[in-house]
Amino acid sequence: MKISLGQKILSRNEECAQKNREFFKKHKILCLNVISSPGAGKTSLLVRTIQDLKDQLKIGVIEGDLETDNDARKILAAGAAAFQIETKGACHLSAEQVQNALKMIEAEKMDLVFIENVGNLVCPSAFDLGESKRVVILSIPEGDDKPAKYPGTFAGASVVLINKIDLLAHIEFNLQRVLADIRTVNPTAQILQLSAAVGEGMQNWYNWLKEQIEK
Amino acid sequence: MKISLGQKILSRNEECAQKNREFFKKHKILCLNVISSPGAGKTSLLVRTIQDLKDQLKIGVIEGDLETDNDARKILAAGAAAFQIETKGACHLSAEQVQNALKMIEAEKMDLVFIENVGNLVCPSAFDLGESKRVVILSIPEGDDKPAKYPGTFAGASVVLINKIDLLAHIEFNLQRVLADIRTVNPTAQILQLSAAVGEGMQNWYNWLKEQIEK
Repeated sequence: MKISLGQKILSRNEECAQKNREFFKKHKILCLNVISSPGAGKTSLLVRTIQDLKDQLKIGVIEGDLETDNDARKILAAGAAAFQIETKGACHLSAEQVQNALKMIEAEKMDLVFIENVGNLVCPSAFDLGESKRVVILSIPEGDDKPAKYPGTFAGASVVLINKIDLLAHIEFNLQRVLADIRTVNPTAQILQLSAAVGEGMQNWYNWLKEQIEK
Repeated sequence: MKISLGQKILSRNEECAQKNREFFKKHKILCLNVISSPGAGKTSLLVRTIQDLKDQLKIGVIEGDLETDNDARKILAAGAAAFQIETKGACHLSAEQVQNALKMIEAEKMDLVFIENVGNLVCPSAFDLGESKRVVILSIPEGDDKPAKYPGTFAGASVVLINKIDLLAHIEFNLQRVLADIRTVNPTAQILQLSAAVGEGMQNWYNWLKEQIEK
C-alpha cells in the first residue's frame, strides 16, 4: 500500500511535469530549474542576470519559498515578471505548482523562465518540474565537501555554478577537489565559477544561457 | 488512506523518539539535535567543541549525511566517539536510526551526545529524535532573510547559533534584522554569535552547554 501510494503521487507530478515540458517546447521557452542550499545565491544570480539581459531576452521567474514573497519582489524590482509560490512548509516545488504559476506570469510570452526552487540541496532534485535543464549552485562558504555529500543533486545538473568565488580569499576551500568530485558524479555538466554579488565570471554564464536558447 | 499512512509513519518515529528520550533521562545525558543548511558549520562547531571540552565531558556524536563518512572521521580525530549514518538520499534522520546509533557509540557512558542532522533547513525540523534540546545554526553567508523564510525550523530551537561572524567584514548582513526575525518566531531561544572556525564567541556556547548539563 505504501508503494502504490508513492507511485500515485509520483505519477501526478510526472503528468504535470510532462505538460509543462510540452508547453516549453511549444512556445520555444528555455526553462531552468535552479537548485541549491539556502543562501547559495539563487536570487542574487537571477537579479543580476535580469538586470544585464532584460533588454535582449524576455525573462520570467517563478519563486519558491516556504514563507515570504521577498524574492518575487526583488525580481520584479530588477525588471522581470515574477510569481511567488509559498509552500507553507513543503521542502520542494511540485510540477503542478509550476503549471499554475506559468499562467500567472504569462510564460508563453517569455524566452527564458527561471524556477527558483526552495532552498534545499536534497528534496528538489527528486521532483521533475518539466524544466528544460537544471542549474545547481554551490557557494564557496558551504565548503568543498558538498558534491561528495549530495551526489544525486549534482548528478542531475546541466550546469553547476560555483558562486561567491570572491570569498575564496577569506575561506579555506579546495577548488580542485570540488571540480573532481563533481566530475565523478556528473561527467558532462558545464562548470562555471562566478560571483553574482560582484559580477565576476557572469559573462560565461550569459554565454551558456544564450547557447541553450539558440539550440 | 493518505492520512492514516502518514499517521502510522509518524507514530513509528514518535515511538522511537520516546524511547530515546527515556534513555537520555535514565542515563542523565544531554542530547542535542543540531540542524542547519549544508555548510553552515555544524561539523566545525562540534570539532572545536570536542577539542576544547573533551577533558571535562564525555562526548559522543551521531553523524547524518546522505553519503560519505567524512564527518565521523573528523569527529573521531578530534577525540570523541562517533557513528556515521549514511541516509542514502533521505533528507533527515529518523529516531530509529538514532536509536541504533546510540548503541554503536555506547551512549550510556556519555554526558553529552550531539546528533548532527542531514544538512537541510526544512525536513529535519519535522522529525522528533527524542533529543533534549534543538540547536539551529545560521551562518552569515546564508543571508539575513533565512529566519523569516524558514520560520518552523527557527521556532523549534532552544538555542540559535549565528556562526561565521568573522565573515561579517566581507558580506552584507543585517544582524539586527536577523535577531528581530528570530524573536518573532521564537521569543525564548538563546541566541549566540560565534565563529567556530576562528574560535570567537565559543566560551558563551560552552557556558550554555554546561548550564544545560547541570540542570
